[in-house]
Order: sequence, then C-alpha cells, then structure tokens
Amino acid sequence: MKNVLICGAGMSATDLISYMLRHAEKYDWFVTVGDIVVDTAKRKIGGHPRGKAVYFDCYDPQIMERYIKDADIVISLLPPGMHAAAAKIALQHGAHVVTASYASREMIDMHEPAEKKGLTFLNELGADPGIDHMSGMRSIDFIRKKGGELTSFESYCGSLVAPESNDNPWGYKFTWSPMNVILAGSTGACYYYQGSLRCLPYNRLFENAKKIEIPGFREFEAYENRDSVTFRHKYGLDEIPTFIRATLRYPGFCEAWNLLVKLGLTADNYPIEGSENMTYREWVSSYLPQSDAKLEDSLADQLGIERGGTLHQKLLWTDLLSNRPIKRVSGTPAEILLDLLLDKLKFKDGDTDMLVFYERIQYRLNGRLHEHVSHLVTKGLDHDHTAISRTVGLPAAIGAKLVLNGQIKTRGVLYPWTREVYEPILNELADLGIAYSSTDKRF
Amino acid sequence: MKNVLICGAGMSATDLISYMLRHAEKYDWFVTVGDIVVDTAKRKIGGHPRGKAVYFDCYDPQIMERYIKDADIVISLLPPGMHAAAAKIALQHGAHVVTASYASREMIDMHEPAEKKGLTFLNELGADPGIDHMSGMRSIDFIRKKGGELTSFESYCGSLVAPESNDNPWGYKFTWSPMNVILAGSTGACYYYQGSLRCLPYNRLFENAKKIEIPGFREFEAYENRDSVTFRHKYGLDEIPTFIRATLRYPGFCEAWNLLVKLGLTADNYPIEGSENMTYREWVSSYLPQSDAKLEDSLADQLGIERGGTLHQKLLWTDLLSNRPIKRVSGTPAEILLDLLLDKLKFKDGDTDMLVFYERIQYRLNGRLHEHVSHLVTKGLDHDHTAISRTVGLPAAIGAKLVLNGQIKTRGVLYPWTREVYEPILNELADLGIAYSSTDKRF
Repeated sequence: MKNVLICGAGMSATDLISYMLRHAEKYDWFVTVGDIVVDTAKRKIGGHPRGKAVYFDCYDPQIMERYIKDADIVISLLPPGMHAAAAKIALQHGAHVVTASYASREMIDMHEPAEKKGLTFLNELGADPGIDHMSGMRSIDFIRKKGGELTSFESYCGSLVAPESNDNPWGYKFTWSPMNVILAGSTGACYYYQGSLRCLPYNRLFENAKKIEIPGFREFEAYENRDSVTFRHKYGLDEIPTFIRATLRYPGFCEAWNLLVKLGLTADNYPIEGSENMTYREWVSSYLPQSDAKLEDSLADQLGIERGGTLHQKLLWTDLLSNRPIKRVSGTPAEILLDLLLDKLKFKDGDTDMLVFYERIQYRLNGRLHEHVSHLVTKGLDHDHTAISRTVGLPAAIGAKLVLNGQIKTRGVLYPWTREVYEPILNELADLGIAYSSTDKRF
Repeated sequence: MKNVLICGAGMSATDLISYMLRHAEKYDWFVTVGDIVVDTAKRKIGGHPRGKAVYFDCYDPQIMERYIKDADIVISLLPPGMHAAAAKIALQHGAHVVTASYASREMIDMHEPAEKKGLTFLNELGADPGIDHMSGMRSIDFIRKKGGELTSFESYCGSLVAPESNDNPWGYKFTWSPMNVILAGSTGACYYYQGSLRCLPYNRLFENAKKIEIPGFREFEAYENRDSVTFRHKYGLDEIPTFIRATLRYPGFCEAWNLLVKLGLTADNYPIEGSENMTYREWVSSYLPQSDAKLEDSLADQLGIERGGTLHQKLLWTDLLSNRPIKRVSGTPAEILLDLLLDKLKFKDGDTDMLVFYERIQYRLNGRLHEHVSHLVTKGLDHDHTAISRTVGLPAAIGAKLVLNGQIKTRGVLYPWTREVYEPILNELADLGIAYSSTDKRF
C-alpha cells in the first residue's frame, strides 16, 4: 500500500481529495488529509475507508515530520511559503512532492538532492500555474514540430464568478485566495512586446489593462503577470519578440481597482495603529485631504473621477465610507480592505465560478503568418466542486498518480512544461470535461 | 575589567569606537570590535592597547556566540534585522545591549526576560532615532513642568551633505546607508494633524513635501516618516492634535525623487531577470511607452515634466539614460538604481556632512499659545569623523558607559525618552559640541 499525504483541505482541495480517494482502491493507496481544521478534512473525506483526516499545522515542524515521514508522496496545498519546508522533510524521509504553486528558490535548489534520492518534486501543477503551462507548451511543441517560427506568445487566465452569478458592480467575487487578489500586481509586471522588455510599475499596471476578446465567447480585460521574463526562458523561447502572461477580469474591474491602489488601500507593508478603534469612514478619510467638502465628494475629487459617476458609485458600493467598525487590530491597509471586501465580494452559496484560459500564439511558417488560438472555459459543478477546485486539484491529483504509477520517471525538481508531464495530464483532464478548443489559421 | 563588544565597524562606528577606547583606561574596559572586514575594525582601533579587532559575521550564529558570551555589554550597529538575534544571545549569556536602531517586535518582546536577568537593552539611541527622541522628550517634560498643554509636536531630522560640499543638482549625497535612502518612504506615512489621522501612500508622499524654514538658518523641505502614530503614544501624547516626525532634505529633492518613484525604479520586490545584460538606457526604456520619440523626450512626456526643464535635467544628470552597463545580476529596480546613484551621489573624500535636527512644539499656558522651537546643526570634522558617525555613535557610546557605570539603573528593554537616559546623554553631547539651541515664545 502507498501512503498519500494531502496537506491542506481548503477551497482548492475538494476535487484533489475525491480524485485520490476514487482511485485509492484500484491503486492500493491510503490517503491522509491534514488540515488545521480537522473537520474540513473529515467532511471532504466523507467516511471513505481509505481516507483519514488529521490535524496538521504547517508551522509546527514536529507535526509536519510526523505525517510526512510515513508518506510515499506529499501533495502540498499549503500557503506559498511553506511548500519548501514540507519538501525538505520529504527529501529527508524519501517522499515525492507535488504542488500547484510556483517553485520558490529553495524548492529549485533541491533539484540535485531530490534527483540523487530518486524523488520527483513536481511543481506548478494547478490551474495557473499549471494548466496554462501545459497547454502553452503543447501548442509550442505542435508549432515547432511543423517547423514554425514563434513570433508571439500570449497566455491569459482568470478565476472569475460565472456570468450568471455575476451580480455586483465590480464583476468580481473571491473564488480563490482573497489576500492574493488584494495584493495582485503589487510587484508590477515585466514582459516582452515586439522585441523589447516592457515594465509596468504597480502604479501603472491596472490603468494599462488591455481588452481581450475571446472569439465566440466574450470580452475581458487583462493585466500582465509579474514575471513573464522568466517563463519566456523556461519555455525555451529566448528569442521570441512578444511573450506575455496575464490575468483576466471582467471589463471595468481594473480601472476601479486602480482607484484603491492609488488611494494606498492595498499596501501591506505597515500597520494602521489602533485600526480597531476606527470606522471605515474614519480610516479612508485619513487618506483624503482635510476640507469642508462632503467626504464622498472629496473621494471623487482626490481620484479625479466624476462625482456620482460609475466609478464613484462602485467605490461607495464597497462601504468604504460607511460607519462600519474596523475589526482588525492594528491591521495593514490590505488587511483592513480585505475584511470589508470579503463581505461585499463574497462567493455565496449557490454562486457558480468559472475558470477561463486563453492563449494566442503567432508564428511564421513558409513565409506566412499563422495564429494558433486556444481557450478553455470551465464552470464549477456546485459550491464544493468549484471550477477552481477542479482546475487546481485535478492536475495535481493526476500528476501524483503518474508519479506513483511510475509513468512520470524524471526525478528531481520537475515542471509541467515537459511532454512527459503535460500530455497524459491534459488528456485525462479532457476526459474529465476540462478541455481546450483550438483553431489554427493562416493570414 | 569589563568587556565591551562593538558589532559593526562601518561608517557610523568611528566615533563610537574612539569614545569607548578613549574611556577604556579610566573605566577598565576592554573593547573588541567585530566586523566582516577586519581591517576596517583594525584601522579604527589604531593600535590602542585596550582594543582588538575580530572577524564578525552576524549571519553566523557560532561566531556571534563566541564573542557575545564574553561581553558585559554589546553595542550593536548591525543591519536592522540582526539586533534582536544578537540580543537573544546576550540575554542567554547575561550581557547588556545598546542599539541605535528602532526596536523590533522581537526586541520589545525580550523586555521581561531581560528585566528578570537584570539586563538593560537600550534601543533607539543614535541620531534619528535617538537624539530627536531625547530632545523632544526633554522639551515635552519642560513644558509639562510649567503646566503647559501640548497642542502640536513636530520633529524633523536630516542627514545631509553640508552646504559647502553640496555640488550636485540633487542636493544630496549618501552620507548614511544608501539603500535606506533608495527605499525611504516606501511604506507611506501616517501622522496626526489638527486632531485627525492623516495617511499618505508612497505614491503621494514625495509630492506632498512641505517647506520647513529653520529660523536663522535656512530653508529645507520635509516628508513625513512612516510611523508617527506609535511615537505619539510612546511619548505619552495620546491626546495631542498634531504629531509629526519627518525627514529633511534640501529644497527640490522630493519633487525630483518622486519621479523615480513614479517610474517604478525604487521598487524592491521583484528582480529584473538578466539585468546584467542591459544598459541603464535599455532598462529605463522598458518603463517608457514604445514610440518614435527620442527616449529623453519620452521620459519627460511620460512623467508630465517639461522637456529640458530643471526636473528633466536632474533626471538625465543621473545617467539613467546612458549606455552605462548594469552590473547587478538580476537585480531589483532599487538595487540597479542604487548602483548608479552610489556613483553619482557619492560622498567624496573632502566632502563634509551635516546633521540637522529641528523641533517645533506648540502649547497653551494660561490661555495663551506658546511655541517652543529647538534646533541642532552639526557638521562632520573630517571624512571619518562625520556628523553621522558622531550623532549616531556618541549617544550609543555614552549610553553604554552609563549602563556599565550603573548610572542607568532601569532594566529590561529601554528607550531614550525617559529622563534617566536623556538628561545625562544630552548634557554630555553638549560638552562634545553637539548642542541644541532653543527659543520659547508667547503669541
């Protein structure tokens, strides 16, 4: 019997857990699910005879070691900073590792030791990063095989509320890690466009959102991800003139979000001392000039937006200027804003979420310009089996299966942009209803 | 004999080291000076029989312990994050601690254990924080003793190049930690003004610089420090309507610096992959829109400043658009900018630096408004005995002496805003020529 340890039973873990349990009998696995809230893990296991819920605190090295030492594979859905800590223990005790997150420097540095011990540490195997990498690389390999010369690669992904549940003025609900949404873009973005490096600092990122029309579906807008430059290299496209990875939102989101950024309400690097004694109105007023004008008007004037206009209404709708008390004790602006928006942009029972992937590649073949366009739109099945849970959890689950079965043979720190990884996973995802459609046309 | 350990022999340590050696015979001290560059420590000890230079790496816990365990007092001029690590070892081995830096959360948490062990951990005993705290609190106590009711407290400090060495268009040279200058203000600032909390995010801090006229001296400008709110509380002024701590620069600096902030060149939270293969011109061009205009003109247009105007000239003077190669390997924007400015804004041999402290307090007494104004301007004596070395090192040195002599009796984590600390230190600083002049007038 092989022991599978799943670390983290939150929002993104539901389909990962059920996939592993569904295949546990056939492959002779026992699945331990650890979470700081044992009941969540228990509920998601649902009494399955091959599953067990345990209390798991990733900030307690002893507890980490207790469960990792018996595992054959560790599937980590821990907070981003903690994967490497889990992997270090896995390295010591001889367990494979799968994560759905970007590989950190510490993770990358474990390549040689993991390889020597015959272990596979498979990273970036979720939705984004994950499905986007796999589809992108499948398309790139397809074009190269034909002899095409790539001139432009753009890849977009968004975790959004489905159109039928999109019922607030921001066109956004928290379908995944809310703090990541608050801090999104704070590092700015660098990418390549028409042969030159382009950098956008945080203060210009959201005002530069671009319209993205997914043919036959609908219009979105996109802001660039932090670090396209590294992936241009990792994908082996060092010479490609345009390389952009970006995030999708419904139209209008970025312009409004940029107002929160300009106000300074998304900063996470200092606390507001005594925030627990303030209302939201008092707090936000501290960012506005002192004047005799109504605070609502000052807000519009400070931001240079029309009083009473759409943007102004969107801001006021958040209750930023309400007398709601702030609960957070000496919170950072980002934390204080988070608490407010968690309520206003809540993904509610009965809501449906949606993952949208879109990829546009241009290449030259036989002297002609071609365009290869792929997209994937998938919605949640219910409030547990959300699109985000399926698109994050299923790639990781399938990846874990392939490592345990010996279908993935490469050892060391591994990514889903090699064919050995992307091909079987994309095929199985398609069988599960998560499939891209592509067109390839010549101009 | 008592063992004094000085950790760090850099720019700010010269006068600290010479003060401790000068008094070593009288008080029977032996002074060990540790630095990662032993020669620097050796040169500053200058063969004194009661001094010894040792190799000291604060990132190596074994080396830290080797020297701290024999010390009666540790004077730490280590990087900000490392004081608490040194203090932890000092706590274990029974040594007092003095620092010239803000007390971190970890430091503050050592209050009770230090107190129990009969140890004094004296923090914030440099120039700013340090001299500003001491003078501010002396003035506050003076006013309170008269029965005055404080209505406004403003405290300003700047480490600047002296007017006679101020020979570049920015009116600034690196007289202290250059990276701190690059990152200054990145957390924004919160303070109290006329009874209400005011917050300025980074993107508005430098454009809100205020003119500060030091009566009888000259005009400066100031931008607010990160965290006046905490000090309002620490000074015991919870009810005061206006409380501001701020940093002084020569006029014109802030407006120009804000351009670098707006461009995004001071960000320190992401690397520019492959920066070592670029020139400064190529790098900065990535932040400007692609156009047919000359890059110099694009820069002005992007920032909304006059082509060829003073601000434009200041920017170009830095060689931001020169073909100088970037040396930093995958550096952050802040690091890349630092390398350039280190050269352009270098504090050269023969240059003189200057510390300026200015404090303006308003209070009501017998129904009348009063103003208490103090300032201190001190210049460096030579390239080693700079104003920054004297104003950072001498308070720490005197503080260490007072702890060793038993004149400071309070144990636990301590700050210079108690009379036991500020009175003897300010008096001795005055004897050393570092003295405030004050006026108190009634309106």
